[in-house]
Amino acid sequence: MEFERLEAGYERRTLVRGDDFEVVECRWSQGQESKQHGHGMSSCMVYVQEGEFLNQSFWSGEVRSETFVTAQTIVTPVGVTHSLRCLSGNGRTLHVYSPPLADPKSVVAHTGVGDLRLSEEAMPLASLMRTLRDVKALSVPTHSSRFMNQLFSGVHPEALLADQVASQTRTTLATREASPVLSEIEDEVVEALGREIGWGNGQRAGVSVPGGSMANFMALHLARQALAPTSKSAGLKDVGPFATFVSEQAHYSLKKAAVVLGFGIDSVVAVRSNAAGRMDVKHLEKCIQEAEDQGRASLAVVATSGTTVLGAFDPITEIHAITESKKIWLHVDAAWGGPALFTDRLKAQVKGIHLADSVTFDAHKLFGSSLTSSFLLTRHRSLLLDANDVSGADYLFHEDQAQKLDIGRISWQCGRGPDALSFWTLWKSRGTSGLSRMVDRLLDVRDELVSFIVKEPRLSLVADPSYLNVCVRIDPPKESTLDSKDWAVFVRTRLMEEKKAWVNYARDQDGRSFLRMILVHPDLNFSHAKELLTDALSVR
Amino acid sequence: MEFERLEAGYERRTLVRGDDFEVVECRWSQGQESKQHGHGMSSCMVYVQEGEFLNQSFWSGEVRSETFVTAQTIVTPVGVTHSLRCLSGNGRTLHVYSPPLADPKSVVAHTGVGDLRLSEEAMPLASLMRTLRDVKALSVPTHSSRFMNQLFSGVHPEALLADQVASQTRTTLATREASPVLSEIEDEVVEALGREIGWGNGQRAGVSVPGGSMANFMALHLARQALAPTSKSAGLKDVGPFATFVSEQAHYSLKKAAVVLGFGIDSVVAVRSNAAGRMDVKHLEKCIQEAEDQGRASLAVVATSGTTVLGAFDPITEIHAITESKKIWLHVDAAWGGPALFTDRLKAQVKGIHLADSVTFDAHKLFGSSLTSSFLLTRHRSLLLDANDVSGADYLFHEDQAQKLDIGRISWQCGRGPDALSFWTLWKSRGTSGLSRMVDRLLDVRDELVSFIVKEPRLSLVADPSYLNVCVRIDPPKESTLDSKDWAVFVRTRLMEEKKAWVNYARDQDGRSFLRMILVHPDLNFSHAKELLTDALSVR
Repeated sequence: MEFERLEAGYERRTLVRGDDFEVVECRWSQGQESKQHGHGMSSCMVYVQEGEFLNQSFWSGEVRSETFVTAQTIVTPVGVTHSLRCLSGNGRTLHVYSPPLADPKSVVAHTGVGDLRLSEEAMPLASLMRTLRDVKALSVPTHSSRFMNQLFSGVHPEALLADQVASQTRTTLATREASPVLSEIEDEVVEALGREIGWGNGQRAGVSVPGGSMANFMALHLARQALAPTSKSAGLKDVGPFATFVSEQAHYSLKKAAVVLGFGIDSVVAVRSNAAGRMDVKHLEKCIQEAEDQGRASLAVVATSGTTVLGAFDPITEIHAITESKKIWLHVDAAWGGPALFTDRLKAQVKGIHLADSVTFDAHKLFGSSLTSSFLLTRHRSLLLDANDVSGADYLFHEDQAQKLDIGRISWQCGRGPDALSFWTLWKSRGTSGLSRMVDRLLDVRDELVSFIVKEPRLSLVADPSYLNVCVRIDPPKESTLDSKDWAVFVRTRLMEEKKAWVNYARDQDGRSFLRMILVHPDLNFSHAKELLTDALSVR
Repeated sequence: MEFERLEAGYERRTLVRGDDFEVVECRWSQGQESKQHGHGMSSCMVYVQEGEFLNQSFWSGEVRSETFVTAQTIVTPVGVTHSLRCLSGNGRTLHVYSPPLADPKSVVAHTGVGDLRLSEEAMPLASLMRTLRDVKALSVPTHSSRFMNQLFSGVHPEALLADQVASQTRTTLATREASPVLSEIEDEVVEALGREIGWGNGQRAGVSVPGGSMANFMALHLARQALAPTSKSAGLKDVGPFATFVSEQAHYSLKKAAVVLGFGIDSVVAVRSNAAGRMDVKHLEKCIQEAEDQGRASLAVVATSGTTVLGAFDPITEIHAITESKKIWLHVDAAWGGPALFTDRLKAQVKGIHLADSVTFDAHKLFGSSLTSSFLLTRHRSLLLDANDVSGADYLFHEDQAQKLDIGRISWQCGRGPDALSFWTLWKSRGTSGLSRMVDRLLDVRDELVSFIVKEPRLSLVADPSYLNVCVRIDPPKESTLDSKDWAVFVRTRLMEEKKAWVNYARDQDGRSFLRMILVHPDLNFSHAKELLTDALSVR
């Protein structure tokens, strides 16, 4: 194929365009520069055949600049955009994309993934790979900045790189023997998070768990071990009944925990929250008193840092004053709000978190590592082992060889993958300072968005946001005959049907629906969020 | 670079060899053929520039042949070996490897992954990628056929492909809205496994769980819901105490389950097993009677299909005769032995499994899908919901839109990745018939190995293997002064230190150590296993 001159001046020709990869060659003169561009879900590798190039790559709103010369390779992972500028008199580059770059103008018609059923018959590799591509294409585009439906959004390049290593390494974190380096990596993430919380060296401990719900389960399990250690052997028959106090805005997993752990749903006492979604501490005191009067033992108080709907933070220090005087376990569910630890702008929201006995932290939410990257953290190291270690696994845990405790002994899982690797890779890549900037940048977007909302006649805030949840009421247009309480649900459904946006809704105490915008996509900026609301306002 | 003629006759030149990929061009004449070869952990994509080629790829001991012509791409995923033969008069091919092929003659010196600590500072991408490569290189080579230490070994290409899709799709299985296709895929795996077990349509149900341990936890949780449904609200205070009967060879996760679920370790009654490791049913009856006499309610009997050490199968039908008459929940822990369902040669071992109330199945063990690919299966569909559904998640589960039940409602996890995709991809690729052949092939290897062991003077079987665990005693050489009881441990350590093999050990009732060979690597053949034992015998 012949070289073709592009608008930017440099020339390009396709050497190979196969089903699964594409090789392109480019010729450059000094000063010529490609636009900032991404590659969809293709990986991009550029080999500098000749010359010197400035590569600028854009990660979560930040720029990294680096110079490459002849025989060096420039890798742009999936999820990163970049631009390339020729610094030498002439230059030649070879580009490999895998899979081939999709032409943004051609829409691939995915009518379905075909037959999902499993049967006797084998499927040839080419069909299998096509089917997997269809599975991807027909999935909800969570990588889009228009995806705000969950407490995560977007794809972080480090997460993809780490996943590939996890996948190829294929080992289990049960023993250090089977995963020497990966176990150390889990240790380091647990250590570093404990440090950010403010717990002392030697006391802080924790374990990677398969999701924030499981971290909450484990926290209540630790509380039980602390309060009624005999129950480990003898069960719950002769202890309790217990009461666990959570805000009415707390995550439903605490109820599941109560069922699974044998306390029963009735043990969960819902403490009132104020209009902003924060726990009413006066009411907490009253609830504890009532439970005591009923002869129930107070197992734990759970403070939520970052509620699912409003993003509210319960006042930890005030709650701790109560739990301390009454000797009750204090758990902080910071699955969503944990990143507040990383920025001065939100430190007040998690003030006192070091006073907690245990903390739930999800790195797959705001920080965007792989699902799941969850941690149960505690400042009671020996209790974590006491609560979870059982005998009967001599075939696996060979004490004579383990220099450090095998993580499997404190985990509820036996064989499991290196779930901590993804967050470790992200943290290593960005540094703590980079994680701080990720949060700050999103807070800036939020502030701009709030200013926009308060000026729009048909929009209003449900509560002044203290985090990255922006809950917004939307009035129906004058001509609408629909019940205005349901308008936000209608808007949300229309936006999803038209594949314009994925944003969740909830209802206030009066049953009125509102949109819950979650500002978490790594490349999100104000214009994305504003355009989404403009589309929402134009629904008729 | 110039073309170079290889021994096989065809010519080859490197166009580009960068840090992260390599492009190679080849020229062929009719009949020339590359040897059967793999590419380590590099992906290999071949574009046919001109000509016609026969590609033979080798998966788990099977051959797939396919012809490719000009402008087609031949993909050889990581984990697959292949050979290429030119069918036309002349041919030209372009090969892309990513990362570049490692030269087997050059040993890369990995002295360590450097500083694992997380700090303020960001790490440049190139260093990050180098660090991740080191993490991989310094991990235990579970992909090697010499890795027999765990109940899994080897890397299946389908698992890597599926992991990449999971990673890039980055969604949660909590709601069907967020994962329409991937939820259906989980449904299909659960359905297909239930079908293999022999449960009726409409009754069979299940859920993907993060590991076999968690499946066992959930099984006992279902048993509790069946026996004492009021405990869901009221807790365990007013019910029980319970007794759960497991073989003394059962997995330690059942004890962990008893602790976590609030029954206490004392509720777990260890039933004697015979020399082959099978549960003694007479002793089971006695244990149940004793527990009843003590006023304990029988919660569940757990039959193990494939014990961790000996690979023994408890007699399900006989156990069921007891559980049925006493109305006790019957759980089968088939985490390791589940694949016995797929071959006539092992059907007798799992006879009666359809009588179980619940079953644990791990696809990441013998079947080699990603860690973890575990399932809790049950024939009590509505109980699965009753036991696990709680209120308070209206923000997430929007009933008006869910046509089918959101999987999150029966799961202990909220946000989680598509763990079922890996096994689905493997099953789809091989077909049920291919899964059967995987098991049968390994049984053939076992049979050859057993014949070898019985003929070797210094080797003897601990028990006649009924599955893919070959437990073998090894006598010390005459000159050894070490306690002969510890000889197998010594051998094992030496083999690991010399990076010759990774094989676990256990001890018999007399404290004598033996090697536990797990025959599960997809490409394992008799010579691999024999060579490993020859190395073991040569330890001095």
